Amino acid sequence: MPLRLDTRRADFGAAFEALLGAKRESADDVDEVVRKIIAEVVAEGDPALVRATKKFDRVDLDRIGLRVSAGEIDAAGDLCDPEALDALKLAHARIVAFHKRQYPQDERFTDALGVELGWRWTSIEAVGLYVPGGTASYPSSVLMNAAPAKVAGVERIVMVAPAPDGKLNPLVLAAAKLAGVDEIYRIGGAQAIAALAYGTQTIQPVAKIVGPGNAYVAAAKRRVFGKVGIDMIAGPSEVLIIADGDANPSWIAADLLAQAEHDAAAQSILITDAPALADAVAAALEDQLASLPRREIAAASWRDFGAIIVVQNLQDSVPLANRLAAEHLEIMAAGAEELSYQIRNAGAIFLGGFTPEAIGDYVGGSNHVLPTARSARFSSGLSVLDFMKKTSILKCGPDSLVVLGPAAVALGRAEGLDAHARSVALRLEKGAS
Amino acid sequence: MPLRLDTRRADFGAAFEALLGAKRESADDVDEVVRKIIAEVVAEGDPALVRATKKFDRVDLDRIGLRVSAGEIDAAGDLCDPEALDALKLAHARIVAFHKRQYPQDERFTDALGVELGWRWTSIEAVGLYVPGGTASYPSSVLMNAAPAKVAGVERIVMVAPAPDGKLNPLVLAAAKLAGVDEIYRIGGAQAIAALAYGTQTIQPVAKIVGPGNAYVAAAKRRVFGKVGIDMIAGPSEVLIIADGDANPSWIAADLLAQAEHDAAAQSILITDAPALADAVAAALEDQLASLPRREIAAASWRDFGAIIVVQNLQDSVPLANRLAAEHLEIMAAGAEELSYQIRNAGAIFLGGFTPEAIGDYVGGSNHVLPTARSARFSSGLSVLDFMKKTSILKCGPDSLVVLGPAAVALGRAEGLDAHARSVALRLEKGAS
Repeated sequence: MPLRLDTRRADFGAAFEALLGAKRESADDVDEVVRKIIAEVVAEGDPALVRATKKFDRVDLDRIGLRVSAGEIDAAGDLCDPEALDALKLAHARIVAFHKRQYPQDERFTDALGVELGWRWTSIEAVGLYVPGGTASYPSSVLMNAAPAKVAGVERIVMVAPAPDGKLNPLVLAAAKLAGVDEIYRIGGAQAIAALAYGTQTIQPVAKIVGPGNAYVAAAKRRVFGKVGIDMIAGPSEVLIIADGDANPSWIAADLLAQAEHDAAAQSILITDAPALADAVAAALEDQLASLPRREIAAASWRDFGAIIVVQNLQDSVPLANRLAAEHLEIMAAGAEELSYQIRNAGAIFLGGFTPEAIGDYVGGSNHVLPTARSARFSSGLSVLDFMKKTSILKCGPDSLVVLGPAAVALGRAEGLDAHARSVALRLEKGAS
Repeated sequence: MPLRLDTRRADFGAAFEALLGAKRESADDVDEVVRKIIAEVVAEGDPALVRATKKFDRVDLDRIGLRVSAGEIDAAGDLCDPEALDALKLAHARIVAFHKRQYPQDERFTDALGVELGWRWTSIEAVGLYVPGGTASYPSSVLMNAAPAKVAGVERIVMVAPAPDGKLNPLVLAAAKLAGVDEIYRIGGAQAIAALAYGTQTIQPVAKIVGPGNAYVAAAKRRVFGKVGIDMIAGPSEVLIIADGDANPSWIAADLLAQAEHDAAAQSILITDAPALADAVAAALEDQLASLPRREIAAASWRDFGAIIVVQNLQDSVPLANRLAAEHLEIMAAGAEELSYQIRNAGAIFLGGFTPEAIGDYVGGSNHVLPTARSARFSSGLSVLDFMKKTSILKCGPDSLVVLGPAAVALGRAEGLDAHARSVALRLEKGAS
């Protein structure tokens, strides 16, 4: 049974802390394995990729090739369900339109002293996109990662995806083509991350790597961080639903299950001020579970990590939501908008009963790559800014240097950095004034 | 002797690759030590901090207290050179003014289908700021880290700084007070990072940790990444100067040395189209070195990692600068501005002879926490955005769900996520239309 909490009970504080602290990810110690794989790819390049892929994916890259050919990609489109392809096109257009609004402005101004200041945004030159294999190979995630990179102006988008037993998801290839991915390689795991970060004979290195992956991929990304940029380390997905007594229990149950079906470590939580709704949701969820293809996964997630929290009024949900810092927050209650303004820690907020989270996963337009495991306290969903960087610009003239220089000299000396001080003082003596 | 390269020589390509690949940081394997320290702080809290601090800093925190008192902070101000204090105030005011321009705008719009979309920025609630001890304890860095956090609206800024043998830099404390730091603890190393990330009996945890540190601090930040946010892993500082024959060789030499004096692993590089300038700079640098207090450090840096590259014309410097992706780039040449527009990979650009990099270190107003070790290819200097995060907002009504819903259902099914599809389909059946 999922956890059932009530803020009126004396043990609520401790129970809520336990919920917050629940460790949902098994901490496999894969770090040594990953270190070794990366070292081999760095040392040997392609041959190490071929060897690891034979071992982990049972695929002979020497035979079928490291890179997925343009012909294969085009052929994949023909294998896709036309309805799914059309849906992908709609999703892509909406994602592009939303992300174009994130394109940042440069800044340049001259201050009262005559100093020119500002910054300039530029795109990252080359980005790697990791796509997991098997059932976690989602075409929608290809769009969500590649489209913002393209909007940012990234010139080279390189996708890697393992092809266990030679199989690649045709809809993933179609999504890559649609989103403008430039190169696709059939490799995965730590070896793919190493190839993207360090390059091999065949694969030119990239400057940043994004996309979700298993424990090996996560450990590899952590290891190459610094050599290249990485996005967040993705954890299991989660939803928090805040609902009042007028919300539809069947819809809420469906949304809780949509999250739970991702992964046995996913987390679905309902907060409500209506005990009757809590009961109705719990019952509807059991009903719906029975007919769900992924019912084993969803049932395990709901049983082990699910929770229903009853509060006295929805205002009490605000501090709880801020501490939970959920990846997805749905609010189905009167005054949803006003309530949402009080919630600062959430990856994305879905307002009202007609905004199931799945709309955001696919066709809303906003990004579905969002901070998990309470990291919405300090990080944001993927955006165009993740594929750009800014350079600050500073320009003094002789007059402004005369005004600012002495303070720089004083601070350089105070910090024991005399060459810093001198680099300014020299100009004050000779050039300026 | 520093490296001397010339693009006209046949071996230039290989020599430039070697320069790019030069490993400037010793890769001390401190990871196991750090893992153990973090585990102890997590398990015990304060007692582990006291023990580690006694061992590494020779300070008894049980006697003098973990937290630096308000009285100590006030008293520190009286110990500071008034000229340095005034300079700090000028720097602070300029940093705040510059960073206020980075405060981001929220977005909210309704698209043609009637879907409401947007995002909302909020500050991170609590941030930890690491300040190194000893000679690398820079008051200017306190301002550069704390001021943007304050501008972002961070409610709680917690500083940690080791006090080796009980000594804290008074100007660092004064800078912390000026910048609005809320709590200061006299701890450093991996134990301080662990305390900030996990909390102890005395120290409440923070959501993000910023600031430079030694190999132990860097390894600890990498380990706690995910539990909390971190900024970049700072490496040794570097400057690239692009200059034409009219630039002042003495000023260039001074700027190269200002970078070199930071650290024996710092890197200073000059690119010029004027062989005579190259010679004049090399000579001026040797002259200036002799009278520099930190001449041993600066000489080692220049000898081991310094380089002068002669190109045929300054246009040739552009691809080299983009590959070097320097933390600091000075351009002292006719057409500096135009040249700068072609350079995408640089932490900060300093235009013209009257903008020594040291101005940017202290009083320019832009941030001096900048990407090192070629990471300007994928990351930016510290900014207000590093202390904020955004939440995306999505709101459909019954009518827009009817339009978008079928595509979401199709994609959910195509991805094998039937509960996703059902969460939308249920609403299409009953509520919408």
